[in-house]
Amino acid sequence: MHLAVVRSDTLKAFPHFTIEELSVPETSANIGVVGLAVMGSNLARNLASREGNTVAIFNRSYEKTQTLLDEHPEAEFVPASTYKEFAASLQKPRTAIIMVKAGAGTDAVIDELVRVFEPGDIIVDGGNAYFPDTIRREKAVRETGINFVGAGISGGEEGALLGPSIMPGGSDESWVTLGPILKSIAAVAEGEPCVTHIGHDGAGHFVKMVHNGIEYADMQLIAEAYDLIRRGTGKTPAEIADIFAEWNKGELESYLIEITAEVLRQVDAETGKPLVDVILDQAGAKGTGAWTVQTALSLGVPVSGIAEATFARSLSSHPEQRAVAAGLPGPDDAFSVDDVDAFIEDVRLALYASKIVAYSQGFDEIRAGAAEYDWNIDLGAVSKIWRAGCIIRAQFLNRIADAYAAEADLPVLMTAPYFAEAITRAQAAWRRVVVAAANAGIPSPAFSSSLSYYDGIRADRLPAALVQGQRDFFGAHTYKRVDKEGTFHTLWSGDRTEIEAVDTH
Amino acid sequence: MHLAVVRSDTLKAFPHFTIEELSVPETSANIGVVGLAVMGSNLARNLASREGNTVAIFNRSYEKTQTLLDEHPEAEFVPASTYKEFAASLQKPRTAIIMVKAGAGTDAVIDELVRVFEPGDIIVDGGNAYFPDTIRREKAVRETGINFVGAGISGGEEGALLGPSIMPGGSDESWVTLGPILKSIAAVAEGEPCVTHIGHDGAGHFVKMVHNGIEYADMQLIAEAYDLIRRGTGKTPAEIADIFAEWNKGELESYLIEITAEVLRQVDAETGKPLVDVILDQAGAKGTGAWTVQTALSLGVPVSGIAEATFARSLSSHPEQRAVAAGLPGPDDAFSVDDVDAFIEDVRLALYASKIVAYSQGFDEIRAGAAEYDWNIDLGAVSKIWRAGCIIRAQFLNRIADAYAAEADLPVLMTAPYFAEAITRAQAAWRRVVVAAANAGIPSPAFSSSLSYYDGIRADRLPAALVQGQRDFFGAHTYKRVDKEGTFHTLWSGDRTEIEAVDTH
Repeated sequence: MHLAVVRSDTLKAFPHFTIEELSVPETSANIGVVGLAVMGSNLARNLASREGNTVAIFNRSYEKTQTLLDEHPEAEFVPASTYKEFAASLQKPRTAIIMVKAGAGTDAVIDELVRVFEPGDIIVDGGNAYFPDTIRREKAVRETGINFVGAGISGGEEGALLGPSIMPGGSDESWVTLGPILKSIAAVAEGEPCVTHIGHDGAGHFVKMVHNGIEYADMQLIAEAYDLIRRGTGKTPAEIADIFAEWNKGELESYLIEITAEVLRQVDAETGKPLVDVILDQAGAKGTGAWTVQTALSLGVPVSGIAEATFARSLSSHPEQRAVAAGLPGPDDAFSVDDVDAFIEDVRLALYASKIVAYSQGFDEIRAGAAEYDWNIDLGAVSKIWRAGCIIRAQFLNRIADAYAAEADLPVLMTAPYFAEAITRAQAAWRRVVVAAANAGIPSPAFSSSLSYYDGIRADRLPAALVQGQRDFFGAHTYKRVDKEGTFHTLWSGDRTEIEAVDTH
Repeated sequence: MHLAVVRSDTLKAFPHFTIEELSVPETSANIGVVGLAVMGSNLARNLASREGNTVAIFNRSYEKTQTLLDEHPEAEFVPASTYKEFAASLQKPRTAIIMVKAGAGTDAVIDELVRVFEPGDIIVDGGNAYFPDTIRREKAVRETGINFVGAGISGGEEGALLGPSIMPGGSDESWVTLGPILKSIAAVAEGEPCVTHIGHDGAGHFVKMVHNGIEYADMQLIAEAYDLIRRGTGKTPAEIADIFAEWNKGELESYLIEITAEVLRQVDAETGKPLVDVILDQAGAKGTGAWTVQTALSLGVPVSGIAEATFARSLSSHPEQRAVAAGLPGPDDAFSVDDVDAFIEDVRLALYASKIVAYSQGFDEIRAGAAEYDWNIDLGAVSKIWRAGCIIRAQFLNRIADAYAAEADLPVLMTAPYFAEAITRAQAAWRRVVVAAANAGIPSPAFSSSLSYYDGIRADRLPAALVQGQRDFFGAHTYKRVDKEGTFHTLWSGDRTEIEAVDTH
């Protein structure tokens, strides 16, 4: 319903109004979407399909708006060709979800909306923004009296259309209006909508970022499992697809395991080969894995599994380096597994144990982020909204919810009884798999890094004491003692006595 | 030589001058130092000790200046109590090295110096600045016509006094004046001063950052070697000190190996125990390791060894987490090595191979940084100035210089013949050590991560193809094929045919 006709008719009767002031649509919408690329269009259609929603739509070029109107008349969208018209088409408090590519475009749209919105209205950024940007934007928009909500939306194009997992930040006030709308479109897991108010300002985008980081780790672990089975047993991708399909019936049940079976089963029509052998082995990345690790480094949280997964992708994407390194030697003996079934079960257990570590590290980062930014994040609620709609959806997340229900401040997720039991059961197999990979010359950065993290965090005593001794030697960085309070320094260049030091580091 | 007397005398003769304008010192200095904490004092003394240098000194509070004057009359410092006086005491082009704690303090000093310096003068920041700050500062100062040089200075307090390794960035113009001065105070390796003009603006601080990242990896690898030998053989720290001292005579010869022996040999006077057993096993960090990894993530360079080393420190520093994880089980069998000498030699080789990987990754980051920021960095020259004065100084760096002399654009350092040979010789032992650690439940994040990197970069085919297939499945991220040009997408939710796609990722 474009408003050109309405405008010219009313102009004559009320000549003191400008065209734009008169362009009030007949239908008022309770929610609007700005940016109608695939994600935005799908989210708008999802919103329109739910009882009680009328959806205003706007796109910088009207062409996409018209296409969406033409292709989906059933949605009864309320189109707008200017921001002013868009604002006029929305009930108060106006609520609009921005779905544009994260970056400068987001700021540009916010600037436009702030001009036409009023105090109490709500601007939602549904893009993949970096959470410090969201914190900055929320602060700037808040000064106008308008609410700004950074909302992580996971589930890709299909999730946007059928029900994503949604991670909104922002103010409590905005959640009153926004909550029911987002609940209406979110995925549903065991009767509960996959959306919760994560915390203030950037909390939603922060949690979405860590979600993606965990996704990187999960995918890398699956890739290592596949690689080990393939190179150790000679099974074909189709046969390994069956193994993943079988695993998907047990404790590993998850969307990523499910689609791994689908990808491995796929045959390339052109060559008749397994598709996975035709795909170039260079994995791309869009930055959220790197953000997760960079943020963890600033917070002092070891997320080694996510880091190794991110690095594995970048390593794969340097063909010029791989070409010169291809001549470096591996082990003398060819890799071959004696007991194939036992090896596959070992790999399954190693995958499960490593996955527990990856999630434990990811939730550790959320916990540290919440402390740093003063967000009151319910970790159990986070795990629950990941049970459906998003890429890492899995039964497994119920166990995480249980763990935090039993102890909300659990310092290390994998020490919860259920996970500790699972790792105890898996650890011998896990070690055998890391050993097999090292012996075979098969890269297992995520498997072995997870195991090292496990052995590190449970260690009675770490050689970090030697590192601290070295630091004191060359930089007078001081050390603490196991047997008394205080900060000490050995006069290494002097008589090597110990002095009590003022800790300036 | 404080100038109060000069002032009052001249005031009467030239009443139209203010006090400050008249406070021209009798002696003109060719170099100045601002900030007289330990590093700044030592650097000032180093400068003063070299033929031809006269050193002006300034500190925010005059007390430190007076102390330095009193304690080191032999240095014949030219003191100043105001920035104006400091500027007046310097020959043109004025050259001043700022030695204050990196951060806001640096900006404050720059602001003051810019006020009293003139176009053509040179301001050097010798602190541990984060290179993006240096890029920003260089750009801002350049607009005044003054040169700004960010110079990484490594070697700690002792290096500052006796001869550090210096990594200056900044303009070519500034290097004309600054080069001879820095050469006069730098450490000397095989007759060559350990300083070179790294590249423009932030190049010097960038290279210093990566130096520190490599230092983290080197220290963690040494710590893992120590831990494995101790737990595998039951040798005492003093006995292991002997092993490191012995290693220091061979290809591992380096300052860090040398001081490791010193630290391990140290006995705590109070308890009679080895000091390393008295030091709390929580390693601190001042951020440069994290910066190195964060920057590498932005550049898409896998520096997994540095990342694991950084994470190992943060893991060690969470006692509350370690306490709850302490109950998690390790392997059933106690770890014990049969052939002790063979095991120690294996660890030595694993340490050497992993160290080659860490340096290869670090130089990869410098290469990528140079490309990204348009710095013309001579990697061979960088390795040469690290041969003395800095924490990672080692004979080993001559081999890196050789490698880049033979091929300046070497894409992967460890593929140079010398290193490829060393790794080929070491790899079986390296694998045995990673296997032993996994079996024994001893954390070896840096050893095993380095091996995984090695096996990854030399792999014919990586399971990254599966990751890319998964990405195409859930996010339509597309993939490339091994057999033809183009970008493709399988219609996973449709009839699963393949279409040629426009690559928007």
